[in-house]
Amino acid sequence: MTDALALAADLIRCPSVTPEEGGALVLLERVLSGAGFDCVRVDRNGTPNLFARKGPKGAARTFGFNGHTDVVPPGDAGRWSVDPFSGEVRDGMLWGRGAADMKSGVAAFVAAAVAARLPDDGAIVLTITGDEEGDATDGTVALLDWMEAEGEAMTVCLVGEPTSVEALGDTMKIGRRGSLTAHVTVRGKQGHSAYPERARNPVPALARLVDRLSSHRLDEGTAHFGPSTLAVVTMDTGNPASNVIPAETRATLNIRFNDLHSGESLERWLREEASRVAEEFEVGVDLACRVSGEAFLTPPGALSGLVGRAVEAETGLRPTLSTTGGTSDARFVRRHCPVVELGLVGPTMHQVDERVEAAQVEGLARVYGRVLAEFFA
Amino acid sequence: MTDALALAADLIRCPSVTPEEGGALVLLERVLSGAGFDCVRVDRNGTPNLFARKGPKGAARTFGFNGHTDVVPPGDAGRWSVDPFSGEVRDGMLWGRGAADMKSGVAAFVAAAVAARLPDDGAIVLTITGDEEGDATDGTVALLDWMEAEGEAMTVCLVGEPTSVEALGDTMKIGRRGSLTAHVTVRGKQGHSAYPERARNPVPALARLVDRLSSHRLDEGTAHFGPSTLAVVTMDTGNPASNVIPAETRATLNIRFNDLHSGESLERWLREEASRVAEEFEVGVDLACRVSGEAFLTPPGALSGLVGRAVEAETGLRPTLSTTGGTSDARFVRRHCPVVELGLVGPTMHQVDERVEAAQVEGLARVYGRVLAEFFA
Ligand SMILES: [Zn+2]
Ligand SMILES: [Zn+2]
Repeated sequence: MTDALALAADLIRCPSVTPEEGGALVLLERVLSGAGFDCVRVDRNGTPNLFARKGPKGAARTFGFNGHTDVVPPGDAGRWSVDPFSGEVRDGMLWGRGAADMKSGVAAFVAAAVAARLPDDGAIVLTITGDEEGDATDGTVALLDWMEAEGEAMTVCLVGEPTSVEALGDTMKIGRRGSLTAHVTVRGKQGHSAYPERARNPVPALARLVDRLSSHRLDEGTAHFGPSTLAVVTMDTGNPASNVIPAETRATLNIRFNDLHSGESLERWLREEASRVAEEFEVGVDLACRVSGEAFLTPPGALSGLVGRAVEAETGLRPTLSTTGGTSDARFVRRHCPVVELGLVGPTMHQVDERVEAAQVEGLARVYGRVLAEFFA
Repeated sequence: MTDALALAADLIRCPSVTPEEGGALVLLERVLSGAGFDCVRVDRNGTPNLFARKGPKGAARTFGFNGHTDVVPPGDAGRWSVDPFSGEVRDGMLWGRGAADMKSGVAAFVAAAVAARLPDDGAIVLTITGDEEGDATDGTVALLDWMEAEGEAMTVCLVGEPTSVEALGDTMKIGRRGSLTAHVTVRGKQGHSAYPERARNPVPALARLVDRLSSHRLDEGTAHFGPSTLAVVTMDTGNPASNVIPAETRATLNIRFNDLHSGESLERWLREEASRVAEEFEVGVDLACRVSGEAFLTPPGALSGLVGRAVEAETGLRPTLSTTGGTSDARFVRRHCPVVELGLVGPTMHQVDERVEAAQVEGLARVYGRVLAEFFA
């Protein structure tokens, strides 16, 4: 069996900071081809992506794994205890950028996939992208578009993101909140601050809008989701002159929303509140919204049961079914088939001294192996 | 008699953009010395200032004039119809930076002072600074400090700022509103916008504070002042990442206040409102206040009557007694003696194509001459 830990370390040694391929997908293609997988590079607009399948195309039972080999920059390398791209194992930990997010997860599912025994009507599909941490416009989306065009499909899919909080397998994600970012611009009329009655100050109008939006409780949460949240992350005018009333001011807000909302319903609400303030202050309010993902849920059932049993058999833990956290490529996969996410302990991701327990990389590969064994049984 | 218009044009030709002396005070010193004035340059920390007196020091009736020769920058000279430092007279207008604010005013009172006939107990004191448009910390203040130390005094003072709105002499300023600028910093706790409950977002706290301050009506105005105004001129966070809740955000506000308030009473109110928001949002709120001038009033009486009669005799207009507008050096002079302001038609000041009617420069010199004649009668 491919050694998941050694493969994870090899992947960490590939400096695949988004958007660099860094040798990571080339390495995986070599390993997978050698193990009898059909591999296709599905690059789009310069983003590197790898598709791999073992077993017949269109097999009745096709298990999918999805993951990414790109990583966020290491930041100040001098603050690390190790070279962030050395893939060192020390004190029982595998260190390096991507150790948690998510080269070890990719290595674990590749090892499990290589070792799996397939029935005649069974197949494994791996979709691995080099752009999850960036815009993600030509990553997993490109792979899924290509699959649809080629008649490739998955029955279910497991994303190997680091979902565990304290112990391997303690948390599985069965959905994610949606995310909407809105840029607000309030336009008034410039003037001298000694004569505010001759100007139309956009600043108080923005303050009122931000206060109202921030004070509003979007909901109380649902069966599988916590309450939706709204965070105004910046307000900017950039006016250095205290005797000048500015013509314009801006703010950005981010909404993480549950299955009671959609990007569309939230944008409608924001536009209503913006219009209200525009009228009250006689200013112009522009709104530009971008939904980077809708809320989604794979209701607890066959797939989460399968993965949960594998975790319990391997670790004795029954995973909590969670929908917390940021977004992941599961938001794209879910349009194609049921999807859940399960992976390593994640808290060091994106930080200095990112690391995971070395033994857990092998442990995760065994969990994935049990998932495949039951799926194909 | 010194030709006020010619002197004004000569002054415009001195490029005395703050803090440059530009030859303006040197020119005035030559003119005044030649006319029997004792002149002293009272420079402080590099700021050029000119003191001039004719008549005995400590005379029972000492009439003061105050003004400045520095000007704001011309901006884009290409947008001007004339060279902003040519001092050209064309179409009956005197053009150039400082034509309105306030080289013509200085030229007018110098011409009137030179021509005045003094009784034995009479004196004229001129205080002319090269820093009114800048920080003004070493300008008129330095002149007044020096006068106090030297036992020099003024009975009353007339500031030659361009106070007229449409016709020469239509408006006299008998006071000015005070001005307070406050910088607010709200400190919270940084975090990820997917987990706002783990952070402490300073942005909504600032929005609430700005909304409250902006909505508050400070007063309804007083006998001689309009209502006080508050303008929040900028809110700035500078957070480019929509997935990050910032640690800190800032705002600046400017209050123009009448004689119902003082810098101290307003700062106390601002601190109360800041504390309230700090408690409600569990954030830190820092406040830094700077009072650039307290509100002041020279109640209508002897001085405004004297100046008003001179205007009426010369123009037929009875000046409106006003307290509107920004600040001027009258805010310093008023600590020493009664002060009013009367000068040319001001609307083009600080603008491209700044200009005044050439005939009005001579007219203003005649108004000032009448003021002196009655004062010394
Ligand atoms: Zn990831
Ligand atoms: Zn001025």
